[in-house]
Amino acid sequence: MKVGVVGATGVVGQQFVYLLQNHPLFELTELIASERSRGKTYRDACNHKTGLSISESIAEKEVNGLEADLDCELLFSALPSQVAGKIEAKLARDGLAVSSNASAHRLESNIPLVIPEVNLDHFQLIKHQKTDGFIVTNPNCTTSQLVLVLKPLEDSFGLEKVSVVSMQALSGAGYPGVASLDVIDNVIPFIQGEEEKVELETLKLLGKVKDGKIVPADIAISASCNRVNVLSGHLECLSVKLKEKTDVESIKDKLRNFNGLPQKLKLPSAPARPIIVMDAIDRPQPRLDRDIEKGMASVVGRIRKDVVLDFKLIVLGHNLIRGAAGASILNAELLHAMRYI
Amino acid sequence: MKVGVVGATGVVGQQFVYLLQNHPLFELTELIASERSRGKTYRDACNHKTGLSISESIAEKEVNGLEADLDCELLFSALPSQVAGKIEAKLARDGLAVSSNASAHRLESNIPLVIPEVNLDHFQLIKHQKTDGFIVTNPNCTTSQLVLVLKPLEDSFGLEKVSVVSMQALSGAGYPGVASLDVIDNVIPFIQGEEEKVELETLKLLGKVKDGKIVPADIAISASCNRVNVLSGHLECLSVKLKEKTDVESIKDKLRNFNGLPQKLKLPSAPARPIIVMDAIDRPQPRLDRDIEKGMASVVGRIRKDVVLDFKLIVLGHNLIRGAAGASILNAELLHAMRYI
Amino acid sequence: MKVGVVGATGVVGQQFVYLLQNHPLFELTELIASERSRGKTYRDACNHKTGLSISESIAEKEVNGLEADLDCELLFSALPSQVAGKIEAKLARDGLAVSSNASAHRLESNIPLVIPEVNLDHFQLIKHQKTDGFIVTNPNCTTSQLVLVLKPLEDSFGLEKVSVVSMQALSGAGYPGVASLDVIDNVIPFIQGEEEKVELETLKLLGKVKDGKIVPADIAISASCNRVNVLSGHLECLSVKLKEKTDVESIKDKLRNFNGLPQKLKLPSAPARPIIVMDAIDRPQPRLDRDIEKGMASVVGRIRKDVVLDFKLIVLGHNLIRGAAGASILNAELLHAMRYI
Amino acid sequence: MKVGVVGATGVVGQQFVYLLQNHPLFELTELIASERSRGKTYRDACNHKTGLSISESIAEKEVNGLEADLDCELLFSALPSQVAGKIEAKLARDGLAVSSNASAHRLESNIPLVIPEVNLDHFQLIKHQKTDGFIVTNPNCTTSQLVLVLKPLEDSFGLEKVSVVSMQALSGAGYPGVASLDVIDNVIPFIQGEEEKVELETLKLLGKVKDGKIVPADIAISASCNRVNVLSGHLECLSVKLKEKTDVESIKDKLRNFNGLPQKLKLPSAPARPIIVMDAIDRPQPRLDRDIEKGMASVVGRIRKDVVLDFKLIVLGHNLIRGAAGASILNAELLHAMRYI
Repeated sequence: MKVGVVGATGVVGQQFVYLLQNHPLFELTELIASERSRGKTYRDACNHKTGLSISESIAEKEVNGLEADLDCELLFSALPSQVAGKIEAKLARDGLAVSSNASAHRLESNIPLVIPEVNLDHFQLIKHQKTDGFIVTNPNCTTSQLVLVLKPLEDSFGLEKVSVVSMQALSGAGYPGVASLDVIDNVIPFIQGEEEKVELETLKLLGKVKDGKIVPADIAISASCNRVNVLSGHLECLSVKLKEKTDVESIKDKLRNFNGLPQKLKLPSAPARPIIVMDAIDRPQPRLDRDIEKGMASVVGRIRKDVVLDFKLIVLGHNLIRGAAGASILNAELLHAMRYI
Repeated sequence: MKVGVVGATGVVGQQFVYLLQNHPLFELTELIASERSRGKTYRDACNHKTGLSISESIAEKEVNGLEADLDCELLFSALPSQVAGKIEAKLARDGLAVSSNASAHRLESNIPLVIPEVNLDHFQLIKHQKTDGFIVTNPNCTTSQLVLVLKPLEDSFGLEKVSVVSMQALSGAGYPGVASLDVIDNVIPFIQGEEEKVELETLKLLGKVKDGKIVPADIAISASCNRVNVLSGHLECLSVKLKEKTDVESIKDKLRNFNGLPQKLKLPSAPARPIIVMDAIDRPQPRLDRDIEKGMASVVGRIRKDVVLDFKLIVLGHNLIRGAAGASILNAELLHAMRYI
Repeated sequence: MKVGVVGATGVVGQQFVYLLQNHPLFELTELIASERSRGKTYRDACNHKTGLSISESIAEKEVNGLEADLDCELLFSALPSQVAGKIEAKLARDGLAVSSNASAHRLESNIPLVIPEVNLDHFQLIKHQKTDGFIVTNPNCTTSQLVLVLKPLEDSFGLEKVSVVSMQALSGAGYPGVASLDVIDNVIPFIQGEEEKVELETLKLLGKVKDGKIVPADIAISASCNRVNVLSGHLECLSVKLKEKTDVESIKDKLRNFNGLPQKLKLPSAPARPIIVMDAIDRPQPRLDRDIEKGMASVVGRIRKDVVLDFKLIVLGHNLIRGAAGASILNAELLHAMRYI
Repeated sequence: MKVGVVGATGVVGQQFVYLLQNHPLFELTELIASERSRGKTYRDACNHKTGLSISESIAEKEVNGLEADLDCELLFSALPSQVAGKIEAKLARDGLAVSSNASAHRLESNIPLVIPEVNLDHFQLIKHQKTDGFIVTNPNCTTSQLVLVLKPLEDSFGLEKVSVVSMQALSGAGYPGVASLDVIDNVIPFIQGEEEKVELETLKLLGKVKDGKIVPADIAISASCNRVNVLSGHLECLSVKLKEKTDVESIKDKLRNFNGLPQKLKLPSAPARPIIVMDAIDRPQPRLDRDIEKGMASVVGRIRKDVVLDFKLIVLGHNLIRGAAGASILNAELLHAMRYI
């Protein structure tokens, strides 16, 4: 199946290209970017230089604009949210399947916001989209790794309250993103719109489909988001109040054994274990653990009792992989397995 | 009054020396350190080099050991906690007043743990110490800035629950402390013993003296402590559940107007305002705001409603000043004003 | 004397404002910036937040545009070089004295490029400017601290060859400047136009005035410029070949005793010692030593023999102070003392 | 062939283990470390945690001491230099082949100091060692990547003078190594013993064997070494004076086409191209380019004319791979191919 990436030259776009270049199901045929990049080779169009190894054939490929006659059926969107709304809607009207990492449509009533291990039944919203093509979305980076961990807690013990403080990596802000003068020897305790995204997306992801709509989960959730001096890998201090009584070992057990359809189908981008529980007292840590399971796992540690809520723990995920491009590709792999595409 | 610093060559010790070198009440006559340093000039004994400007006369002063005949009445202790316990006890038996930043004695029943604006009445525990001299302590860096903010909330609205996630600076770990290889492009989500310190010290600080003992405050408190890539300045994401209903403006008002005896007496190290409330959406930040009020204030921002507890906010303090040396010196200034010394 | 700053909201502009706010000779009456900032208070117009303490009266001052009727005789220019050329020329035509940190005019034949301790006689070029006002410039940050050290070497021993490798701080690139994603865990071995500036400006600064023109110094000079993960303070590895034989002690002696008219006149921004020689084997270091002499000194260390040229040494300077705003203000103080303004 | 690593738990030791765990020629049978580690599993013994993925069977392997009966013929040494001298000598007397990364023996007259592409004929010194086993060494990290680039210049154009300024990564200092408080927002312009190592080792490596001894190369070489805030990857600003006239394109050509016996034999650790020449104006950069050719190449850029010497360029290498463990393993692979072992 021929696929393309829109917004291919940004931080997330490059991660898409890297992950798709030798993909067993998808053939990357279109690299699409804004006017500034058109006609350039992909190598030259990428202002932000990464250490990702991109094949020579892709590096030399010409970047197209959206007005071009696109040679693909599926588009991955790494567009900035300000422009994603209109462009993705048009692509869907034009008959394309769009797997989007942008926030523009995530909370719309007929747009699935999906983590494959969590709520693949939400894909049924697709049929309520009145277009030839369709749009599916994956959550914000901070939400992805969080909800992957909340899901087995909700299923096994019932979630009542969730409080999360994030320490987010710089690559989450795109390129050029955060100025070095702002973040060296510093923490920035605010990320525009992020706390709202985490709270609302979590409730939608854990919600139920009823009459063709999502009824959001009934959980009190509070997020505080900070930017720290880390390249990639968001760390979260999570505390939860559960409906049922349990203990640390039972929680570890449920997290360790959690999996979903992607694992059963062994989808190409599915991690063998979507949640890794570490026992070392000081793990996970972003630089050491963000690449576990090729960046597709939520890595959990320090599960312990909490006197304010019930339990507290640490969650780490790779914001560009499970938090962005990898999430979107896994969604597409599942859509393909479920014959939506 | 002649004073000395024990543990004078470490990160906190140097901060003591810097703050004391031109002090209006105290004359710094003794620099005391471990065997490794004795007989060296202070300049040579300080392995850890800082940008602090130390006067030539102090830099050239000889470092003494504790066995020397000490020419001072009051000692500030910046000793590592493993050795502080015995040494400080002996100094008190020898008739000296000890204002200690070490954790060794903080939680003992007859040792005052004091923040001058919060619980100066705890100094009365001194009379229960059966030594010629005495020991007073100040809290852990993370606790200092936190409790300064909790106090007016407790007084005005009553605290029921407190949840705090810290992002702590590297200078809090001393020298050599955290290896660069461990913290660059990283966060370490664990600090040995820190969460317990924050929880227990907070309850003692907010406790009441009854029959010559402290009855700890009855508050549920939970701390999660992280080390981030920042030189100085601990940032904390705090959420609180209050006994009385209130609103953001009332909280700001109580914090802004909070002060205590150090402000009334205009003690040399007292900040004009112990709590600074910033209105900018993305402040306080460690590098930009840690030096406000010469590092003696808790700087607060982003006060907002919280759906899990009642309110959440950001707190920043300079861990070496209000969190360590400055706290200890302010305690001593108050002891002097109250004629304990 | 009433003065203003054009480009007042950038990294260098803010440094100018900070240094001028309580200046004994100059009264800061005009804050001038681009269209984006006009009509805002200075506080709101400064996108880049620093820890510099700006007085409330300046922070609340309104930012003007250049079309305004300017209430000052002297303007300090912190304009970006792309726009500085035309604007500064117009200001000079309008009768204003301009002390510029921008590179636009530095190499023009009738524009003085001056370091007060090095070549104040170059101010005589002012009379060849056919405008009511005039322009004087100070060198690039990397050049400033370098030439301050080269001057006594040239005077005492004669310079034949100079090779310099710089490790430059991020604040030298302005704001937003270098993206955090580009520089964390990294070094960037290229700065656009920098090597040429260092080479050409050094030769002009060490050149002689002849027939109203500068004859550049006849020295072979080579610069290699790198950007490193440091906030402020450029470090340079310098090696020199001298015309006369000498030894390390003689060089130290000449550097330590170097001074000029600013020192004799005790100009407000003049460092007591323009060159500080440190003896510690591992100094100077940017974070520890950039603020020596309030950032107005070149700090030198590790002077030793070199088998390829003759001697090698380390040079550090504060790129925003002696390398930019401080340099420009010192030039103006000297112009005032010499009655050019 | 069974091999072991002595000093297996340090930064370089772990890199050895990582590179050897699935090696086609060598079977890793012995992990040897100091007393502190003996009897522990390798996982527990490694205080310094890296992101390197070590197989479960190795992680669970017990760490031995040197007094054990070692089940291997070849030992890789990652010992600290203070202890390496005696231990390695004893191992050689005991009949073992030792491929050492330590500096202790590098400059001894009968010990080969070898980079396989540069001076494999120096292995003949082995026969002058009067022990049953023998010792071979690889150069210091800074020297390795440098001499790989100097060799084709020497061969093609003759080297007369070499001046190099290094910006070295933190992992080169081992663990715990450089304290975070020393290097954040800073550069340290001194590394104990490093400049001498670079200078002396370079001359030995480029020297000729004559009468069973090395006659060092007759080149004037000067090194200035700095520690920068980078995890891995040493960057060097190199300038050279050549005996023959040439131009930038000829130099690029010679560098690009340089190779040696490891390439011809396709040794397992040999890079396809030992020198990579990049054309981008701002490359190589440590984080982006250190892993090219799996860390076994010298990556070169910005080759340009120099008015002080003849040409200047940038050289980057991975200090733990081509600069340490990888170098030592490649030496052993070549010894194996040449039937020394």
